[in-house]
Amino acid sequence: MLMDDMGWGDLGVFGQPSKETPNLDAMAAEGMLFPNFYTANPLCSPSRAALLTGRLPVRNGFYTTNGHARNAYTPQEIVGGISKDEILLPKMLKKKGYVSKIVGKWHLGHRPQYLPLENGFDEWFGAPNCHFGPYNSSIRPNIPVYNNSEMLGRYYEEFKIDIRSGESNLTQIYLLQGLEFIQRQTEARQPFFLYWAPDATHAPVYASKQFLGKSQRGRYGDAVMELDHSIGQILSWLKTLGIDNNTFVFFTSDNGALITNIQTTFEGGMREPAIAWWPGHIQKGTMSFQLANVMDLFTTSLALAGISPPDDRALDGLDLTPVLLQHTPIFFYRGNELMAVRLGQYKAHYWTWSNSKEEMKIGINFCPGQEVPDVTTHDQREHTLQPIIFHLGRDPGEKYPLSVLTKEYQDVLSWISPVVEQHKKTLVPGFPQLNMCDVAVMNWSPAGCEKLGKCLKVPKSEPWKCDWPH
Amino acid sequence: MLMDDMGWGDLGVFGQPSKETPNLDAMAAEGMLFPNFYTANPLCSPSRAALLTGRLPVRNGFYTTNGHARNAYTPQEIVGGISKDEILLPKMLKKKGYVSKIVGKWHLGHRPQYLPLENGFDEWFGAPNCHFGPYNSSIRPNIPVYNNSEMLGRYYEEFKIDIRSGESNLTQIYLLQGLEFIQRQTEARQPFFLYWAPDATHAPVYASKQFLGKSQRGRYGDAVMELDHSIGQILSWLKTLGIDNNTFVFFTSDNGALITNIQTTFEGGMREPAIAWWPGHIQKGTMSFQLANVMDLFTTSLALAGISPPDDRALDGLDLTPVLLQHTPIFFYRGNELMAVRLGQYKAHYWTWSNSKEEMKIGINFCPGQEVPDVTTHDQREHTLQPIIFHLGRDPGEKYPLSVLTKEYQDVLSWISPVVEQHKKTLVPGFPQLNMCDVAVMNWSPAGCEKLGKCLKVPKSEPWKCDWPH
Repeated sequence: MLMDDMGWGDLGVFGQPSKETPNLDAMAAEGMLFPNFYTANPLCSPSRAALLTGRLPVRNGFYTTNGHARNAYTPQEIVGGISKDEILLPKMLKKKGYVSKIVGKWHLGHRPQYLPLENGFDEWFGAPNCHFGPYNSSIRPNIPVYNNSEMLGRYYEEFKIDIRSGESNLTQIYLLQGLEFIQRQTEARQPFFLYWAPDATHAPVYASKQFLGKSQRGRYGDAVMELDHSIGQILSWLKTLGIDNNTFVFFTSDNGALITNIQTTFEGGMREPAIAWWPGHIQKGTMSFQLANVMDLFTTSLALAGISPPDDRALDGLDLTPVLLQHTPIFFYRGNELMAVRLGQYKAHYWTWSNSKEEMKIGINFCPGQEVPDVTTHDQREHTLQPIIFHLGRDPGEKYPLSVLTKEYQDVLSWISPVVEQHKKTLVPGFPQLNMCDVAVMNWSPAGCEKLGKCLKVPKSEPWKCDWPH
Repeated sequence: MLMDDMGWGDLGVFGQPSKETPNLDAMAAEGMLFPNFYTANPLCSPSRAALLTGRLPVRNGFYTTNGHARNAYTPQEIVGGISKDEILLPKMLKKKGYVSKIVGKWHLGHRPQYLPLENGFDEWFGAPNCHFGPYNSSIRPNIPVYNNSEMLGRYYEEFKIDIRSGESNLTQIYLLQGLEFIQRQTEARQPFFLYWAPDATHAPVYASKQFLGKSQRGRYGDAVMELDHSIGQILSWLKTLGIDNNTFVFFTSDNGALITNIQTTFEGGMREPAIAWWPGHIQKGTMSFQLANVMDLFTTSLALAGISPPDDRALDGLDLTPVLLQHTPIFFYRGNELMAVRLGQYKAHYWTWSNSKEEMKIGINFCPGQEVPDVTTHDQREHTLQPIIFHLGRDPGEKYPLSVLTKEYQDVLSWISPVVEQHKKTLVPGFPQLNMCDVAVMNWSPAGCEKLGKCLKVPKSEPWKCDWPH
């Protein structure tokens, strides 16, 4: 969800005093806030090109050499657009079957070859340029609004924006387009990428009638309120459809706020509000001070989808997965049996201490002489339905299992169980290489033994199933 | 640098009370400590297979189905080894020209097709199995020591281990093999991967004469001391050769300490000492509580080398780059001019506030009416040799530049300058797409306009170099 010219300080959760973004603030409370998140350029087009290519504008061509250190973008008269040599995120995601839609502003070039459907998106509803206007059609046409590869009308004509009152229902239209796409893909059980890029906070700022005059911050605040409301609707829709635990959502903006500092590389032009949301995966109410930027979203999205980034070009984004998923589970196996799992500070044992070697029987316990029932016993004990759970922060020596009667135990179990189930369900074991033994395969005559006169006679092959007492 | 059966608590920096690992402790002080780092299995072979494939042993085949939940490894009589379907780290690294050497214990199968040079390594000095013995060559041969693809001799024969005294100079030999390889690759200006895997802390434990009896922890402690000494030598060698700033080093162990708990999935068997070291890139004296494991080293190494991980298989490792490089620089451009860079809490501006639009001339400053010399001026000002530096933690509004006369300024400059130089040196700009304008390319007749009767007449093409006043 990429906003247009919305600034770092426009969200309540980032300190805006009038607190008019309850839905974004709730999103942060349910997800992870990034206070050190940056865009790639203080202007729309280059920053959007950076987001979708994972590369600095100076690499992907979204810059000018006409004026030294000048910002450039894609107004109506621009000849260029996104180079065919660039690979955009939706094209990469297609490798794993993702269907992609852009709703809202494109801004990577408006000539036919540069449009979204030519660059990896399957669907588009929105406009190629900023919604400046109205124009009189003789010196300059109004900007078209596309539905996929054909125009549906134009801003100020079929798609009204009342410049004087600031009224327009375009954010409502963009919201419905997003919701419809999400529902359709969910019903088709189809992985999807929605790039939701409304432009209401870009000049000329607009809002629907029900939001006009409602904020304490003028028309700009009204537009922010409507966008905040729409984001609440989208997140709520994901929950209604039951795919919130399976949908990674990221909120940010393309460059600094319209109000001031825009188009400079000072913080106001570059630092962006940023929230990651993924219930059950990203821990709620957390904050990461990681220095990060929009190009990381390219690399991170690919990592989350299990797709390797292109390695024939320089990428400027990092994979933020370890930062986002601070509670990545660690799985502990013996053979093909999942013995234990660590998640956060907790470790759940499904099978315990299992060395059956003779010497173990004489009693090597955790503390000599001390017995913990079901834990220090030397036989294999199964605890599948009721794993033994330790809190490794309080008890790194795993000596004091949580009582199954406690709320803590039940909470941890309900957190860990779906993670374990998901892992078991998707695991495909390899062919076991360590089953067969044979004295004939021992190091009797390794390569080079002839030169050294050290070859030994190889005995007859008599394979057997190895006995593994450990 | 992968140790054999060395435990989490064996390093001074992890709390071992006799403090006999001064070099590893110094490595941690110069690098980043990972207290929540795990191996993939409580036994050598599977954990080493996991490290080199980036996959759980149950996926890469390093497990048995003979006994339920049994640990299995590669003793002399094992028939199997690493599957030809697995892709090992050195093979991946070859894509970017890395030369790879393993020094020490292999343990991924000892039959000819399973050996290191058949699996991506260019060089090998060491043994395919554990150094158990001595054997009398009739029922069981002694383990060979290889130099590349041919044996050089055998443990207890050409490569002595005195079982009674514990004396062996094998760690010295392995150290020299490592140093020689590093020097040779450095002189050839050749990127390299050294997998340094000595086995002195695996039973039967051994040490060189000069270390025997020197520790407060018996023969095992002597072996740890010699390994610690060797690691100090290796890091010092990187500094001597001047490649310490260009060499990522990671220290860990293959499974829990020999002393107790070995071969179980309790913490003692799975949690490992772990230190990342890379002067100038990984901030010294830091600690990451990230839950991580040996399989992350596969993915992370590829990311650092700029190589995409294989996407035709499940990988169990995360890319830890963002965790390691907490001070990833963020570059701020306008056009093709690097305007500013953020590193840690600091931001250095090489060019400042540059909007030359007419409206900017009337004075939109940071605080109305307030002027900060060289910052709030509206012309482009170059500060190439003496950037304006702000500490964004103390001064997020960028109003109080550090005085160039302070030590802080000079320290920050000497930290940021090489990062900027390196970036500029390696940057390859794309072809600029935003130079040309033309009224003929405006949205006169977008696709679909015919159906709507909304096509406008396209004026004559008259391209010009766009003027970018921003």
